Amino acid sequence: MPTLILLRHGQSQWNLEDRFTGWVDVDLTAEGEAQARKGGELMQAAGLQIDRAFTSVLTRAIRTLWLALGTAKQTFIPEIKDWRLNERHYGGLTGLNKTETAAKHGADQVKIWRRSYDVPPPPLAPGGDYDFAGDRRYVGAKLPDTESLKTTLERVEPYWISDIAPCLASGETVLVAAHGNSLRAIVKLLWNLSADEIVDVEIPTGNPLVIDLNDGLAPVSARYLDADRATALPATK
Amino acid sequence: MPTLILLRHGQSQWNLEDRFTGWVDVDLTAEGEAQARKGGELMQAAGLQIDRAFTSVLTRAIRTLWLALGTAKQTFIPEIKDWRLNERHYGGLTGLNKTETAAKHGADQVKIWRRSYDVPPPPLAPGGDYDFAGDRRYVGAKLPDTESLKTTLERVEPYWISDIAPCLASGETVLVAAHGNSLRAIVKLLWNLSADEIVDVEIPTGNPLVIDLNDGLAPVSARYLDADRATALPATK
Repeated sequence: MPTLILLRHGQSQWNLEDRFTGWVDVDLTAEGEAQARKGGELMQAAGLQIDRAFTSVLTRAIRTLWLALGTAKQTFIPEIKDWRLNERHYGGLTGLNKTETAAKHGADQVKIWRRSYDVPPPPLAPGGDYDFAGDRRYVGAKLPDTESLKTTLERVEPYWISDIAPCLASGETVLVAAHGNSLRAIVKLLWNLSADEIVDVEIPTGNPLVIDLNDGLAPVSARYLDADRATALPATK
Repeated sequence: MPTLILLRHGQSQWNLEDRFTGWVDVDLTAEGEAQARKGGELMQAAGLQIDRAFTSVLTRAIRTLWLALGTAKQTFIPEIKDWRLNERHYGGLTGLNKTETAAKHGADQVKIWRRSYDVPPPPLAPGGDYDFAGDRRYVGAKLPDTESLKTTLERVEPYWISDIAPCLASGETVLVAAHGNSLRAIVKLLWNLSADEIVDVEIPTGNPLVIDLNDGLAPVSARYLDADRATALPATK
């Protein structure tokens, strides 16, 4: 039976500073590292044998994966990194403090940018500190200058179909260590949720979400390994 | 121009205890972790842009890679793990303390097992603590029960030819984070050394060896990034 494990990265320095991060390659804090290690311990304690891991090209997700594989005693499994699992690109909000942004644009507008399904923030101005056009990890990619959850899903979905789903279809246990919004995109695809339903799904950091799938890759059961920090999940059939 | 970087893992718990390790999945000590981080700092300071990394399926090499990529600020590069880059399999000596082994078999015999090119230690008895037949990372592999440096090279070489050399031939900068003897096998292949010549090559731990290659993948220059801890290298043309 295919099993998918979703693991959201632990606290980063900019989570701590309450800044919009998006594609900026901010590292984990010590607390974020501890969350990642805990996630690995939970997977090991649950007896999960991971066959393959996918992650983004952002350090906070990659190091979450590494730390979790270390404590899970499964360092040796294949890892695949792809920018299409990156966090949502926060466009012109990238780097800004969330409180300051609310003071400037109004809390209602910021809530729309953060929580709506299809309203992207203003685009990133080219050439600034957070323009990733010259970053070698994105060579050959058509880069966004801002993203909504909807457009995030639109680049996660083809990667899901081409690279991740085939591994699951062959019966593997697959770990995806990624970000709040790229993981939310996967949950929306799996459960076929509406826009209204997905914006209410919030995956906790460092808490592995284990999803058992049927042969058609529909969820038949789902649980968080740290039940004390679980959030509501969509119903399974 | 193709560039190959060889990085030997830092101190492991059994290096510290002076035990024959081989394929046993012993982790790094804190000192070994620091050596790995230092290796990454040296690569970053040298301005090396790594395109791809290869490592074994043993935790001490994998975590050396991870820690080095972290301090090199290059977490995002593709990693490939393969058992053919493992340390030499120490056969029936696996797990034994080196001093005790010398007391039992004589120092001369142990020196032959450790330093000869083609004399393997006695084979590992099947079914013991260090029998890796049931380990899922080796499914489908034809496993040795002991190895000399010669037989180590005989499984490194096909992997070198099929997987690593083509990346170099396409002009990539390739990092191989591995073990004393699998790296020695690569050095012997690159420089076309004799058995007598290779047994005298000793790559220091955590000290990146940077080898510039010509289009035919022959070494044209080679240097250790930490010159203070360099050992003798074969001559380049």
